[in-house]
Amino acid sequence: MSQHSKTTPKVIKQLHRTVNKTLKDADLFPKEARVLIACSGGPDSMVLLDVLQYLNYHRKAQWTIGVTTIDHCIRSEGASELQLVENYCKERNIPFWGIKRDVPAIARARKESVETIGRYERYAWFNQLAEREGYDYIVTAHHKDDQAETILAHILRGTGVKGLTGMIVVSHDYMVPVVRPLLEVTKSEILEYAQLQRIVYCIDGSNEDVQYNRNRIRHEVIPVLQTINPNVVDALCRLGNIAHVDEAYIYGESRRLFSQLVMLTPYGYTVSRRAMRALPLAMQRRLWQLMITSVSLSLLHQEQLEHIVKSGEPKTFTIQKVTINAQYDTIHVYCEH
Amino acid sequence: MSQHSKTTPKVIKQLHRTVNKTLKDADLFPKEARVLIACSGGPDSMVLLDVLQYLNYHRKAQWTIGVTTIDHCIRSEGASELQLVENYCKERNIPFWGIKRDVPAIARARKESVETIGRYERYAWFNQLAEREGYDYIVTAHHKDDQAETILAHILRGTGVKGLTGMIVVSHDYMVPVVRPLLEVTKSEILEYAQLQRIVYCIDGSNEDVQYNRNRIRHEVIPVLQTINPNVVDALCRLGNIAHVDEAYIYGESRRLFSQLVMLTPYGYTVSRRAMRALPLAMQRRLWQLMITSVSLSLLHQEQLEHIVKSGEPKTFTIQKVTINAQYDTIHVYCEH
Repeated sequence: MSQHSKTTPKVIKQLHRTVNKTLKDADLFPKEARVLIACSGGPDSMVLLDVLQYLNYHRKAQWTIGVTTIDHCIRSEGASELQLVENYCKERNIPFWGIKRDVPAIARARKESVETIGRYERYAWFNQLAEREGYDYIVTAHHKDDQAETILAHILRGTGVKGLTGMIVVSHDYMVPVVRPLLEVTKSEILEYAQLQRIVYCIDGSNEDVQYNRNRIRHEVIPVLQTINPNVVDALCRLGNIAHVDEAYIYGESRRLFSQLVMLTPYGYTVSRRAMRALPLAMQRRLWQLMITSVSLSLLHQEQLEHIVKSGEPKTFTIQKVTINAQYDTIHVYCEH
Repeated sequence: MSQHSKTTPKVIKQLHRTVNKTLKDADLFPKEARVLIACSGGPDSMVLLDVLQYLNYHRKAQWTIGVTTIDHCIRSEGASELQLVENYCKERNIPFWGIKRDVPAIARARKESVETIGRYERYAWFNQLAEREGYDYIVTAHHKDDQAETILAHILRGTGVKGLTGMIVVSHDYMVPVVRPLLEVTKSEILEYAQLQRIVYCIDGSNEDVQYNRNRIRHEVIPVLQTINPNVVDALCRLGNIAHVDEAYIYGESRRLFSQLVMLTPYGYTVSRRAMRALPLAMQRRLWQLMITSVSLSLLHQEQLEHIVKSGEPKTFTIQKVTINAQYDTIHVYCEH
């Protein structure tokens, strides 16, 4: 990382350092890792591509970097965006895979939204390609502003502490881990970097997964919030970080208590009323949610369940397809399978 | 609570039930409790006064209800608002104390903001009066929209999970507990109730503690958010409730670990590096904050402290007036007093 000259602008050094730290803190990527970058041709992913090549060279990491672009056939520019990325890769001898998916047609056929199908097709393709070509990581260009928008979207939609955690640097929701090296970099840093490094990109190329509300959050809500606190993006991301750490702890403790206190039965679970009563409310609520996985429990549900634990009376009630029956000290949870 | 007739509008019944449930869930108020209502003359506190009288009568609770109004001398209407509340109480034989405080003058003299002094003078007076006249509770008219604004203000300013908890039904920040019976009632329910019950109130009478940003959150931010989710106030309050329960748990566990692992010394604290390392990150962070109470630790501070715990090397550094020194297994925390 000492390859910056005295004349290298501060933004560029800073961005390299931030991404380097993000990767290091998450123990990413090991030497000789095979890294597949999902590139839309927009500024975020073109900058990401530049940064990872820089780090690869100057850290002597010997990563193998590959690139893939998917044309979702949503906008007519999709084909030329793919072409731009392809040319970039050809010039630099970077392995490239371009693919076209008629997302609107698939969405119509499956009666799903274009956003849902777009997302599904994208990640299905990334995983398929990564597995086939032996890549260890899929890398996306989500950045700090995306993160703040995600957290804010969850807050607006209604969430608990869990939903505040936003995106994480490495997620394992798919077969191949997805890595987001730009999560600590703001959009404006990315744009400044692109300008200084003369990186060619397509405008709006990265907006294909932007939904209607997400666009409104970006263009209407965040600017209003910034007039109250110019650093609101930082504030939201910081909240996300804290919530992530707290949630990991609470989840871990609740799993531990679950395995101690909850008995598996052929029809679901049983748990002692007395044992539940002795737990802090936060743990009671988590245990209920771990037993009743098929429903996202509302506060009202949780209050009803709390009442069962408190009261000691025999009681039966149902939440959707789950029946809860309390007799003496034993609470039975019947989950329909 | 069965004194509603068939013709009683739903809003009125609902509001009575909601307040009744809020008080019951918090075990408030016991029979013959002496309850001092802080009343500005605005719709919120005039409705609160009506509702508590109703519950007192129909629950046969035998509460003694008193009322106090403070004219902050910020707006010229302050005196007539006080007069309105005084007249209301006289007609109904409710003990009343009106008081005038020249908040702008005090603020100028002490070089503090009008909001800070207003708040300080208000609560100082409520406590003084409650103690002198033997009231058990101070009651304020904060409602669900206030709660959502408070939580949102904390999010915008930057907060951890703790700041998401907002206001609680009973707080013990002062000598006399402060109770907020309307915390589950929305502003629109209050206004509808006031109209249906023909409750006389002053417009804007309750806005004296509204700061500039708070006003902007109310009039500019929340309306924009409501176009994305009309139930955003509920969503924020629900988040507050969940965060409150989680935070209570995390705080309790961290206090428990603190008393197990942290030794008090004449100059501050010591703690074992190994013991800290074995803790989940959420607990490490809380223990640091419990040892270093004089600074609100930033994420950067926490990362530096984390590094000390992880590394095992001898190291000394300071955070403001607190010095942290790690030698072998022992971490010394020197707090300047």
